[in-house]
Amino acid sequence: MANENKKMVDAITSMDEDFAKWYTDIVKKAELMDYSSVRGCMVIQPYGYAIWEHMQRNLDDRFKALGHENVAMPMFIPESLLQKEKDHVEGFAPEVAWVTHGGNEQLQERLCVRPTSETLFCDYYSRVIHSYRDLPKLYNQWCSVVRWEKTTRPFLRSVEFHWQEGHTMHETAEEAIAETEQMLNCYADFLENDLAMPVIKGKKTDKEKFAGAVSTYSVEAMMHDGKALQSGTSHYFGDGFSKAFEIQFSGRDNTLQYPHQTSWGASTRMIGGLIMTHGDDNGLVLPPAVAPIQVIVLPIAQHKEGVLEKARELTARLKTFCRAKIDDSDQSPGWKFAQYEMKGVPLRLEIGPKDIEKNQCVLVRRDSREKYFIGLEELETKIPELLEELRKGLYEKALARREAMTYTASAYDELCDLGENKPGLIKAMWCGELVCEEKIKQEAGLSSRNMPLEQEQISDVCVCCGKPAKAMVYWGKAY
Amino acid sequence: MANENKKMVDAITSMDEDFAKWYTDIVKKAELMDYSSVRGCMVIQPYGYAIWEHMQRNLDDRFKALGHENVAMPMFIPESLLQKEKDHVEGFAPEVAWVTHGGNEQLQERLCVRPTSETLFCDYYSRVIHSYRDLPKLYNQWCSVVRWEKTTRPFLRSVEFHWQEGHTMHETAEEAIAETEQMLNCYADFLENDLAMPVIKGKKTDKEKFAGAVSTYSVEAMMHDGKALQSGTSHYFGDGFSKAFEIQFSGRDNTLQYPHQTSWGASTRMIGGLIMTHGDDNGLVLPPAVAPIQVIVLPIAQHKEGVLEKARELTARLKTFCRAKIDDSDQSPGWKFAQYEMKGVPLRLEIGPKDIEKNQCVLVRRDSREKYFIGLEELETKIPELLEELRKGLYEKALARREAMTYTASAYDELCDLGENKPGLIKAMWCGELVCEEKIKQEAGLSSRNMPLEQEQISDVCVCCGKPAKAMVYWGKAY
Repeated sequence: MANENKKMVDAITSMDEDFAKWYTDIVKKAELMDYSSVRGCMVIQPYGYAIWEHMQRNLDDRFKALGHENVAMPMFIPESLLQKEKDHVEGFAPEVAWVTHGGNEQLQERLCVRPTSETLFCDYYSRVIHSYRDLPKLYNQWCSVVRWEKTTRPFLRSVEFHWQEGHTMHETAEEAIAETEQMLNCYADFLENDLAMPVIKGKKTDKEKFAGAVSTYSVEAMMHDGKALQSGTSHYFGDGFSKAFEIQFSGRDNTLQYPHQTSWGASTRMIGGLIMTHGDDNGLVLPPAVAPIQVIVLPIAQHKEGVLEKARELTARLKTFCRAKIDDSDQSPGWKFAQYEMKGVPLRLEIGPKDIEKNQCVLVRRDSREKYFIGLEELETKIPELLEELRKGLYEKALARREAMTYTASAYDELCDLGENKPGLIKAMWCGELVCEEKIKQEAGLSSRNMPLEQEQISDVCVCCGKPAKAMVYWGKAY
Repeated sequence: MANENKKMVDAITSMDEDFAKWYTDIVKKAELMDYSSVRGCMVIQPYGYAIWEHMQRNLDDRFKALGHENVAMPMFIPESLLQKEKDHVEGFAPEVAWVTHGGNEQLQERLCVRPTSETLFCDYYSRVIHSYRDLPKLYNQWCSVVRWEKTTRPFLRSVEFHWQEGHTMHETAEEAIAETEQMLNCYADFLENDLAMPVIKGKKTDKEKFAGAVSTYSVEAMMHDGKALQSGTSHYFGDGFSKAFEIQFSGRDNTLQYPHQTSWGASTRMIGGLIMTHGDDNGLVLPPAVAPIQVIVLPIAQHKEGVLEKARELTARLKTFCRAKIDDSDQSPGWKFAQYEMKGVPLRLEIGPKDIEKNQCVLVRRDSREKYFIGLEELETKIPELLEELRKGLYEKALARREAMTYTASAYDELCDLGENKPGLIKAMWCGELVCEEKIKQEAGLSSRNMPLEQEQISDVCVCCGKPAKAMVYWGKAY
């Protein structure tokens, strides 16, 4: 029977029942990824990859508008190159994959599969930077990197993951710091406007900064369950790598100088962020900017005369101004409704015989399920309007949730109590000492997310030790 | 002195003097790539990568228009997975890079860095293909792969290279064969129309086919020196991998069946092909479709009043309909002319005080160096026209060269004589036996390029053994 072959949309685990299972249910049922035979490595399926392609295109346009150029570095790093910068190798060596054999021969020097490419870029820069005229270098690459993680979760933490890594070199520290800030703002703008994910921009503590960096900045988003997701990082390196790699240029004053460096990256973990920010118990909810399908057209009673024709005609018209698709398969309307809700398609357009009579159609918003009866002549204006309203709605809902789940602690027992009982972020003052950060981690189960650029003065003293405070920190649990 | 820091455009080795050196001179001086500290792996520099991005965008649009979807497979293949298809593992195992350690631990099973991804796609297909309703699967991925080559040359043969690999599964052999042909035609169309590289479409002999394929088709282009460059391949696998990986689906008649498979790939070696097809002793010559800069605007006597302003205004106008860039640096016009010729920019637009007076500019074609005096009001029509003429000119020149360097051999000593003395391709009949193919390789130094789809009947008998001929083959030397 044909029906046996029909696919079913099963209900997924509810978010409140089991958040982790809800997440993996969506990942699988929305067909974003599949597990592979390689431990910790995933197959990104067409629908998931299409979301990534929209993220890539969008970010790439932003990077290029800011003067960056794409390049490709090798995927391997010789062991001696990885070891040049001391902090960097300490941070990464324990978690890299080592290539020891090429064909049937053992290599004289092991190669690691890049976990990140600072060392490769610096090796290249040492050959091509000679004069201040060669600066700045504003490079980026799209690639995958490998970190030998023990525990992995789809999109959030995997042995191989896809990302972009920008690597820039500048004449002065000021320029490099400005670049670090610019790219942090670039990520924040993309996340907030295109992914509708409110983020907190801030500086990481020394404990949490990137191996080899002078300072690391991050954008942190809050997930449905109150945990934080670091969604993009931007690092300032000073001239540490330049010195380790002997990169020097003759400056405007004819003296030899070391250039100042940055790097910044964002990855497919943003897909995980989308799911855990906007998703609900019916599946994924996608912001229009990265939705592979923005409007799914569903003919109702499609066997009736003229329905399919009209639906196809509308789809063709929609394609001139948005990403539209028709599902005219023989699945039931109920199945189709559930299927495209699962896939997070922002708008559903239903058109049946009665609608055609009235020269209208029904539009249904994925996020609120609100229904709109729209005259067919209005689609060119109404669809972009509804997509924009949905985008704003997603952002505001996420922001309201973050605000409702953000707490302030001015006393240590309060911090511990919140850490134990309230999922979310906690604002508290900090003296800047590692010992307090580690104590908070151990006793309250909270790690420092970042020191937000927008500081508040909750009190004058560290929530932990009572000594004078240096900064307000967002504390929380993180993916 | 500022001048000491100015970059110079040195002359490059002439093509006739030393073709191999001419090639690497262009690769380096046009800043397409740089060598890295990793043996056989290169850094693709911004200008080279921009060419690749245009190739990617162009091909990707074609693939998607034909219904293909992009995905991402892991970069590693467990040894046991690589070994599932016998011919395939024999072909690739000797040239893969092996990962044996993750962090500080030895892996229980070695992983190879993918040399190609048939096995990974099949592993995935075995999990997701169950019914004829799941077919066809039309997947592609953009990635880099690794083959442990002993001798490497920029873009032509390297340990790591960037490419796309399409992998499709079909209900019937007919459909899969049609896909194989369709994608061969897709490559041919891209190469001929967008890269202005005439190609010969044909089938590879069994000796030259892909490890594990039933049949391999290729598009072969001829380089300046008469050598052939295989510029894209399309493989039909039958159900060999399906059986090895136990991929089965229930068919329309409810019986269990094995799907039929294809794969097809094109790589950054096309950049090498561009250089050796269109380049000359002044450097690269780029067809407009993949030129990062289509028109370089050079202000002449730019210190004179109004020149820079006018040149910038023109550049902004040009950017609305082509990829234009201005060079208003303080380098001399002579340096700039040489620099953008080296980089292969299709059109140079010069504008100086006299031109401004006459409301005109000078356009110079990179390929022929022809000069055109064009009224400024005509740019919107004239520039696209000239770019199109240049494209056609490149194609016709390459085609004429290929025809002049293509020979026919009906006797064996003629074949050997041509092989020894005439760079180029030689058409000759073949019986289909490996022994003749190997003899021709050994004695005439010629390998079979392909059996063209457009067959000619040069004679009835094999040029080597005199037995009845099965096909006309293009013989030659290849990169």
